[in-house]
Amino acid sequence: MIHFECDYTEGCHSSILKKLIETNEEQTCGYGLDGHCEHARALICDLCEAPDADVHFLVGGTQTNTTVIASILRPHQGVLCAGTGHINVHETGAIEATGHKVLPLPSQNGKITASQIQAAYDEHWNDSDHEHIVQPGMVYVSQSTENGTIYSKAELTCLHETCQRCGLPLFLDGARLGYAMESPENDLHMSDLANLCDVFYIGGTKVGALFGEAVVITNPDLKQDFRYLLKQHGGMLAKGRLLGIQFETLLEGGSDSLYFQISKHAVDLALQLKASLLEKGYKLYYDSFTNQQYPILSNEVMERLSKEFSFSTWCKVDEGHTAVRFCTSWATRPEAVEKLLDTL
Amino acid sequence: MIHFECDYTEGCHSSILKKLIETNEEQTCGYGLDGHCEHARALICDLCEAPDADVHFLVGGTQTNTTVIASILRPHQGVLCAGTGHINVHETGAIEATGHKVLPLPSQNGKITASQIQAAYDEHWNDSDHEHIVQPGMVYVSQSTENGTIYSKAELTCLHETCQRCGLPLFLDGARLGYAMESPENDLHMSDLANLCDVFYIGGTKVGALFGEAVVITNPDLKQDFRYLLKQHGGMLAKGRLLGIQFETLLEGGSDSLYFQISKHAVDLALQLKASLLEKGYKLYYDSFTNQQYPILSNEVMERLSKEFSFSTWCKVDEGHTAVRFCTSWATRPEAVEKLLDTL
Amino acid sequence: MIHFECDYTEGCHSSILKKLIETNEEQTCGYGLDGHCEHARALICDLCEAPDADVHFLVGGTQTNTTVIASILRPHQGVLCAGTGHINVHETGAIEATGHKVLPLPSQNGKITASQIQAAYDEHWNDSDHEHIVQPGMVYVSQSTENGTIYSKAELTCLHETCQRCGLPLFLDGARLGYAMESPENDLHMSDLANLCDVFYIGGTKVGALFGEAVVITNPDLKQDFRYLLKQHGGMLAKGRLLGIQFETLLEGGSDSLYFQISKHAVDLALQLKASLLEKGYKLYYDSFTNQQYPILSNEVMERLSKEFSFSTWCKVDEGHTAVRFCTSWATRPEAVEKLLDTL
Amino acid sequence: MIHFECDYTEGCHSSILKKLIETNEEQTCGYGLDGHCEHARALICDLCEAPDADVHFLVGGTQTNTTVIASILRPHQGVLCAGTGHINVHETGAIEATGHKVLPLPSQNGKITASQIQAAYDEHWNDSDHEHIVQPGMVYVSQSTENGTIYSKAELTCLHETCQRCGLPLFLDGARLGYAMESPENDLHMSDLANLCDVFYIGGTKVGALFGEAVVITNPDLKQDFRYLLKQHGGMLAKGRLLGIQFETLLEGGSDSLYFQISKHAVDLALQLKASLLEKGYKLYYDSFTNQQYPILSNEVMERLSKEFSFSTWCKVDEGHTAVRFCTSWATRPEAVEKLLDTL
Repeated sequence: MIHFECDYTEGCHSSILKKLIETNEEQTCGYGLDGHCEHARALICDLCEAPDADVHFLVGGTQTNTTVIASILRPHQGVLCAGTGHINVHETGAIEATGHKVLPLPSQNGKITASQIQAAYDEHWNDSDHEHIVQPGMVYVSQSTENGTIYSKAELTCLHETCQRCGLPLFLDGARLGYAMESPENDLHMSDLANLCDVFYIGGTKVGALFGEAVVITNPDLKQDFRYLLKQHGGMLAKGRLLGIQFETLLEGGSDSLYFQISKHAVDLALQLKASLLEKGYKLYYDSFTNQQYPILSNEVMERLSKEFSFSTWCKVDEGHTAVRFCTSWATRPEAVEKLLDTL
Repeated sequence: MIHFECDYTEGCHSSILKKLIETNEEQTCGYGLDGHCEHARALICDLCEAPDADVHFLVGGTQTNTTVIASILRPHQGVLCAGTGHINVHETGAIEATGHKVLPLPSQNGKITASQIQAAYDEHWNDSDHEHIVQPGMVYVSQSTENGTIYSKAELTCLHETCQRCGLPLFLDGARLGYAMESPENDLHMSDLANLCDVFYIGGTKVGALFGEAVVITNPDLKQDFRYLLKQHGGMLAKGRLLGIQFETLLEGGSDSLYFQISKHAVDLALQLKASLLEKGYKLYYDSFTNQQYPILSNEVMERLSKEFSFSTWCKVDEGHTAVRFCTSWATRPEAVEKLLDTL
Repeated sequence: MIHFECDYTEGCHSSILKKLIETNEEQTCGYGLDGHCEHARALICDLCEAPDADVHFLVGGTQTNTTVIASILRPHQGVLCAGTGHINVHETGAIEATGHKVLPLPSQNGKITASQIQAAYDEHWNDSDHEHIVQPGMVYVSQSTENGTIYSKAELTCLHETCQRCGLPLFLDGARLGYAMESPENDLHMSDLANLCDVFYIGGTKVGALFGEAVVITNPDLKQDFRYLLKQHGGMLAKGRLLGIQFETLLEGGSDSLYFQISKHAVDLALQLKASLLEKGYKLYYDSFTNQQYPILSNEVMERLSKEFSFSTWCKVDEGHTAVRFCTSWATRPEAVEKLLDTL
Repeated sequence: MIHFECDYTEGCHSSILKKLIETNEEQTCGYGLDGHCEHARALICDLCEAPDADVHFLVGGTQTNTTVIASILRPHQGVLCAGTGHINVHETGAIEATGHKVLPLPSQNGKITASQIQAAYDEHWNDSDHEHIVQPGMVYVSQSTENGTIYSKAELTCLHETCQRCGLPLFLDGARLGYAMESPENDLHMSDLANLCDVFYIGGTKVGALFGEAVVITNPDLKQDFRYLLKQHGGMLAKGRLLGIQFETLLEGGSDSLYFQISKHAVDLALQLKASLLEKGYKLYYDSFTNQQYPILSNEVMERLSKEFSFSTWCKVDEGHTAVRFCTSWATRPEAVEKLLDTL
């Protein structure tokens, strides 16, 4: 069975394993205060041209989303996001468990627009009963989105400006940030993220690491006491060095670092898959330029494929067809994609 | 200015004031354990033909909804309801503040169907990732709904059967229960509510009381330790007798009691208003047979009316028209309705 | 049976009933935005010489404590208080239910000192692991305390200065504020409370009202969006006017108003009881100068008294003796105290 | 600098690194459903002679404690534990953040007794106001405790029987379980833990793993839907295999497995340290037979040691003396202990 159902089916990039072996016997203090974490923080600040940013390392995405959102909102506030947003549909109510309503906005392709944010904000404040309604307190977007799409610099700038106007911190979930950055459609630099978002994260779990997400807080108002929240949400890893070691390995070299090289590998394979799918006449459910591809397959093809390949079922399109998801990753071998294309 | 914007613009029925005066100097113990509360509980059990029901008195609707829902759900569960449900839109995230996601279902008229419940349940359990998704843990409906509509006995039976099959407790918000019971369209008895719901409440705030909601728990599994939750949610009134006194005044006499008489008064006036509106050619946004009526008014009429009457703006229908809400109540004087009709 | 077990065994002062009757048929808007509430707010601002204070009305003490504390703390913060504080021992974990740890300090008589606050603050910040520990985020005191004692102006000033220095908002629970103000030991004016506390409340439930607590927020940083929290915690009474009516009745006339007159009545009777108890040779568990008195009774006396009087059992002192609590209130009749003294 | 301040200053046992390398390119499904996790689960069930136990893998201790406790308690319940318990003092209020009060019991050495549990239970239920007080809902103990002490089989049996009688699930935090099991004072088998606790965990983070805690649920009533809570609390690791791989490496071989061998290594060194300390005339703050040792040092010795060794400051004993903590671990080299002893 060849796995394409998600982008975390293997361990980690061999360079990370190598570094873990090299550093294994070092004695360090815990909780992210060691030298490796310090080094990784410096690399990230350099990469993002954000010397004053606070950088924190967490283990996984749900934990990161929950911790960041809980640290920002007051009790009567909620978080605006796409209805398809991970926090709305795939985190078992982790946000609500911290007391906050997720405020979903309709989305066809995983993205939301500045005008949707403005409209939601206006609707709230124009309602004479607004004190009876959850107040929008921040905005959550994903890059790339759960549907493989990405925000352009123009779109993110527009979101930023609207959020600034409305006083809503903008939080970008970068669990798949590497795959977004290496999309041929991408026109954002890491420094743009630092300038346009109040807080965002650089995903490691799906991009070469065993686990790990690096949160970058650029808005000074959001920095205070974040480590308390880290600890409260179980996100302060005892052997925090493991996160530092992974991110220093991935990000040494900045924009030419391993992180982006292996992201490009995944995107290249995904777009090769996409091109071949289109050539063969398959329709795509979303027009993705990143590592997730969503072909619509007939029942017959699905059944045939599932004997040798695993993939995600996305949604039923009609009686005879289903949209599915294939993910490539830093670990995907070109032969696997070729074999898949042969079988299709 | 004559108020029609809601059903709680006056104090309370004079019989309640009278009883408050009569009992004012009595010394009783607190927290709902006094003789008046005991008496009111007995009246409610009789009225509902539910001798084994637990009855608790709370102050208001948001508090009641929050306390009941928090007492039932486990942390990973959410509550299914109409998207228009009070808990989803008008309680400032009180349910989420207790850690639970509200799971809204689309609704045109404030009601949800048994098949929607079944579909939501099936969708959850058929999803291979269901552990990543909030689990439906109970169902919330309102009677009458926020749109003035009511569930028939057949509909509620169907909801009950589906809920039983799916293991989902059914909770009925009866903030406006009197007005539902006295609707000419109603075919439910109070005993039906006790048989078909796991827990429901009889609203006092909107039906003649100064304040107060009487929760009736018929499902034995939901009874344990409810008073602890009452206290935790600030719902255990120190002078609990005030709730007992009000409900014994309203419900003495059972199905012929003051509660139903004054509810009928409100519904009669609302339906008189409705008939006249239709006669005059007004369209109605919802087809309500209870105390809330939703005519669609032109801008010109709205402006004219708002000089003498207050009412709720519901939603814009088109550039020139708006759906509004007029509420009658136990306290509405016939002359007020007549004057309104004259002005229309 | 004559009740002395708490200070809320009767209804309300007759002037309030009278006012409720007079205003019963008025139509007003809901949720505390009516003219009576406005008037009561103005009276309170005048009384406290705090023209810019925000005043909000809630129904009961647990609800008020929870709402105020939840509105102030960030998720990783807790509230410092006496171990005997109501929020620590008698609210079924309402504070914890909003996510916050109560941080109890030892207390012999219900009071805590400025130096205890300073020490707790220092201990936290001097701990190298402080990010692993709940951060003190505010201070809660009661006036009068759960043990009948009161803070002097010097003590409250000292608490205020320490809290200011540590950046900890000071919150005073005034459920029994009237009885504290009328204590012969009291040297605080209402304006002192406004100057020395960031937020406090004037209790109605125990001092002549049917129910109601008036929160006074003087610290501008704590004012924002408080009404959202009111609603979320079920504290926004639909017929908010009931609270306005009660507080305008109680506080019309400022420092000479009914509120203080009836408080004095209760304290006078309590101190008469205290004097007689001491004269008869009874020991007192706390040296209270307010409406709660805590004699230590032998088993024999306890048994004899309990045939005619109800009172609270406080704690066992030794095999043969128990400290108990007698409360007087605005409603206590002198004859009741006399009869009690005769029986003792 | 040689580190003795905690038991997680190094990476992991080399066998784990080796296994991570061997398995790195395997493709597996995520979230703990892969073959390695299955295998590790089977090993644990065998080791504990608990074939029907549910086993779940989480990343760290705070997360594990929070998830287990939140899955068990109803909203009005709290968790009884030693005042020194990790959940009470070192998790930044993580338990309270899920809505539950921690109910600390006094402890001199990190342990609590069955009679303390019984007394707390009785005190709650005998209080006529118990509905106003947080209800004890479960019991938390640590093995070994935060003070290095351990429960004997007799003591744990007694706790178990009391908990059964009171209907309180017993939860054992085994973050340092290996070090407890290999103490010469230990008379418990792993099967005893399975029989006497409702749920417990086998700590990996401090005992040879990079990270990871294995929760064993033996009480069938506590099993339902635990994976939802895992996910909600950010504890469902995407690459769950990493946890399976670590625990299969540590536990292959059952009671003779690496886990216990390396635990013994740490305890042996700690007891060698203890013996020498006593011989040299040092006093010990706790009488620990596990990997944590708590000598009382004079200021002069502390200063001298801190030039070459890092250790934890525990508490000031008097002006001139401080209790400190030295931890050994699976990774401690005998030379390090020797050098420490030489310096002392």
